[in-house]
Order: sequence, then C-alpha cells, then structure tokens
Amino acid sequence: MKALGKHLLIELNDVDRDLLDNLPAIRDILICAAREAGVTILGESFHQFSPQGVSGVLVIAESHISIHTWPEHGYAAADVFTCGSAVFPEKAAEVIIDRMNPVTHNIILMHRGMVKVGQKLAG
Amino acid sequence: MKALGKHLLIELNDVDRDLLDNLPAIRDILICAAREAGVTILGESFHQFSPQGVSGVLVIAESHISIHTWPEHGYAAADVFTCGSAVFPEKAAEVIIDRMNPVTHNIILMHRGMVKVGQKLAG
Repeated sequence: MKALGKHLLIELNDVDRDLLDNLPAIRDILICAAREAGVTILGESFHQFSPQGVSGVLVIAESHISIHTWPEHGYAAADVFTCGSAVFPEKAAEVIIDRMNPVTHNIILMHRGMVKVGQKLAG
Repeated sequence: MKALGKHLLIELNDVDRDLLDNLPAIRDILICAAREAGVTILGESFHQFSPQGVSGVLVIAESHISIHTWPEHGYAAADVFTCGSAVFPEKAAEVIIDRMNPVTHNIILMHRGMVKVGQKLAG
C-alpha cells in the first residue's frame, strides 16, 4: 500500500490576535511555507473578514495549503495537503508553526488515497 | 467545549476516470455542493493537470471546499471545511458523493478548533 497524498491538519492555539487578522502577513507565511516545501503555486485566494479573521488557500500543483483564522479565539486551522515524493509538507508545517508562534499546536497526519502499489483502474 | 469548525475528509474510490479528468464537471459538482450546504462562495481556483487530474478549491465565507483527483487510480480526495451553525457541510458531502458516484467512499469528521464555550483571548 501507498498513500497518494499526505495531509497535515495543523491546530494553532493562542496565536497573537493581530497576526491572525493580518492578511498580508498570513499570505506571506503561506507562500514561504510553499517555497520551503518545494511545491509549485498555481493559484491563490485570500479573504479578510469583518469584523475579523482571514481565510487563504494556495492551490499548488501538489494539492493545496490553506489557513483559516479566528482572532477572537487566538486560533488558526492550517492544512498542508501534498502528493508526490519530491516535496516536503512537514517543512511547510514547520514554517507555519514557527511564523505563527502558537503557545500550543497539534498536527495530525492523514494519509489520503491509500492504494495498492501498481494498482490502476482498467482503461 | 465546542468546535469552531467542522472538517469532513472524504475519500472517493473507483470513480469514473473520465469524470475525474473533467474540470468543468468537477467544478459544477463543487459549486452545487456549496449551494446545497448554504455557504457563500468568495473565490475559486481550479486547475487541469497533464496528463491527467483536476484540483479545485472554493474559498467560502465559512472556510473551504476542495477536491483533488487521480484519474489513473479512480480516486478523489474531497474536503468540506465549514464554520458556523447556519450551514450544512454534510449536505455538501452528499452532493459530492452522489454526483461522483464512487464504488466505495469514506468520510472522516474532524472537529477543528475545540474551545471552551465563551473562551476568548484577553484583548
């Protein structure tokens, strides 16, 4: 068996609330994370919410990197979902955690698309 | 305790490979899923890969809906991540599963951002 994708679900607790509400800073963190992971950015969509909060997604050639923030709770949920062996999703997670600087964090790694090695659908 | 977000991770196995490689059809499914869930679409990014495969993300006011497909394996990974009580992520998942029509599927529900009721960071 092998997994087609690696999906890191990252919980970031007690993050500075100003950072969580700062779209340019959040976007910069995700782009730096993508760069460190060695992935290729294909598209992006970032949004500032009122009264507070930021959502952002980078669509990458290897799947996606996303973040959603709740400044009022000091919380952010980040996802790093990649496929392929030539990329380093853990490095993206490290950049996000280092730059967001949460008091506590948690990472769950989900293996997506478990297939038998060599298994393909018949044409 | 309450969760700020509900994140459905959906595994779709043995899906028609032509559908998995059809960007307009995949995009239509995600938009229908968003509509059924009652969420607000803020942005989108869809990409067709060569030789095959589609990635797409809808950034919604309530977080995101994404899909990544591997036609060569008949597999797609979909995510429905929402916040708020006035939306119905399970309905989005139902639309995706009904329209993708996998032979088998699996859903994991992750509660993101578990916070104490009434808990907020000090200003």
